[in-house]
Amino acid sequence: METRITAWRGGRTEHCRDTVAVEEPLEIRLAGCNVAVTMRTPGNDADLAAGFLYTEGILRGPRDITSIAHCLDDDGTPLDNVLNVNPSDHRLVDPSRWQRNFFATSSCGICGKASIDAVGQGAPPIMSSMRVIDRVLPTLEARLRDAQEVFGRTGGLHAAGLFDAEGRLQVIREDVGRHNAVDKVIGHALLAHLVPLSHSILMVSGRASFEIVQKAVMAGIPVVAAVSAPSSLAVDLARESHMTLVGFLRQGRFNVYSGEERLTHGEIREQ
Amino acid sequence: METRITAWRGGRTEHCRDTVAVEEPLEIRLAGCNVAVTMRTPGNDADLAAGFLYTEGILRGPRDITSIAHCLDDDGTPLDNVLNVNPSDHRLVDPSRWQRNFFATSSCGICGKASIDAVGQGAPPIMSSMRVIDRVLPTLEARLRDAQEVFGRTGGLHAAGLFDAEGRLQVIREDVGRHNAVDKVIGHALLAHLVPLSHSILMVSGRASFEIVQKAVMAGIPVVAAVSAPSSLAVDLARESHMTLVGFLRQGRFNVYSGEERLTHGEIREQ
Repeated sequence: METRITAWRGGRTEHCRDTVAVEEPLEIRLAGCNVAVTMRTPGNDADLAAGFLYTEGILRGPRDITSIAHCLDDDGTPLDNVLNVNPSDHRLVDPSRWQRNFFATSSCGICGKASIDAVGQGAPPIMSSMRVIDRVLPTLEARLRDAQEVFGRTGGLHAAGLFDAEGRLQVIREDVGRHNAVDKVIGHALLAHLVPLSHSILMVSGRASFEIVQKAVMAGIPVVAAVSAPSSLAVDLARESHMTLVGFLRQGRFNVYSGEERLTHGEIREQ
Repeated sequence: METRITAWRGGRTEHCRDTVAVEEPLEIRLAGCNVAVTMRTPGNDADLAAGFLYTEGILRGPRDITSIAHCLDDDGTPLDNVLNVNPSDHRLVDPSRWQRNFFATSSCGICGKASIDAVGQGAPPIMSSMRVIDRVLPTLEARLRDAQEVFGRTGGLHAAGLFDAEGRLQVIREDVGRHNAVDKVIGHALLAHLVPLSHSILMVSGRASFEIVQKAVMAGIPVVAAVSAPSSLAVDLARESHMTLVGFLRQGRFNVYSGEERLTHGEIREQ
């Protein structure tokens, strides 16, 4: 979004125009039933809705989705910020299973759980024979950044990218919310029938917090890499889930917090 | 938290120990009733709970709080991650007023709202005669960073600080969640009977998203400054609320997105 600002540079001010990252609420409905509001950057909303419902454990796969469409107002005009997911089976629409109403701000992941017991999703450990040559990982940072055209303009967007084991970018999504960017790439893969992503690397531009690792676990992603630090709970969950968790992936370096056995120095032999 | 990692440095690996920022769920209860779970860095939990309940509009001031204490398990042992706020008036415990259960991840702000209509809090515009000399603002970044001892160790914590108009630090709090750091400083001020903070500057280490500005509006803070970018909705809300919103406050520069009239080049005369 273009906006008028005053730029202050060492005591001198200049009136100019600046681009800020767009943040708007998206209401996600399942069969017309409110499930969540997330503060997101508009674009790829169907991916976001599909990814959100999947990583929250509400939908189990692409076959649970019949269609995704914007709701209409009374005049039949599509509402840009209200998206309805039509499930293939109405038994999926069971709010008591969700245990919560969700509201996700631009930097929020899993919302609406009122007690600690509801935090865990109980996903099974990751089953993947994928191996990654270690020197592939430092190439991902630049590839993600190069693909982040918007970032250069506003500095306000997080990115998430899926890469294959050779470091080839499969899909990238951006958002004011890190968790939304992750839901968007997972949702894209879900709708393309590529989930579980047992041969993908998820790279995120910021930190790796609990909710990012949890979403990746739900999608069966064996390797998660973050430009910045992981949290303690992210490390714990990655270890429990047999996930490879890489942090501080920047400037040709990285730290491995979990699942080092997936990284190899030399040739890869699939097992 | 200390943990074992493998550090990869240009093809050479080294096994070593690293410190990661602690992220744990905190369940916030009001009169024993579950209100929210937030993924936070333990410490200053009473500030966090008080700030959260206040910025969410559930409590109206410090007089609504009788006490704040950890809940006990069956053996009478305090539960580190469950905190109960005792209200002075049990009519405040009205879950239908909350319209939601909250779950805040480490990077989430306002949680649990299921429809877009519930996003706004409806706080009145900020009434403050505070003026700030513009050259004070560039000093805040270093002051916040200097006060962030933990940051240097893990790189994983956000900071929020309250400053007076002369740039003197009043309180700083850190957290894996930016919104938690803000709730902690506001909660600290609330419990010290300093709210509304009509003569304070709130500085945050990351971006200024909608929920950060909304929390500041609820606390009556006239100036919010962020090291990184604001979002479009943050700018919109700041303008509606007559708040001064400063972004990209780094390296001796900043951008003013809203409320420039509070900044002055020279002497300040209170109005």
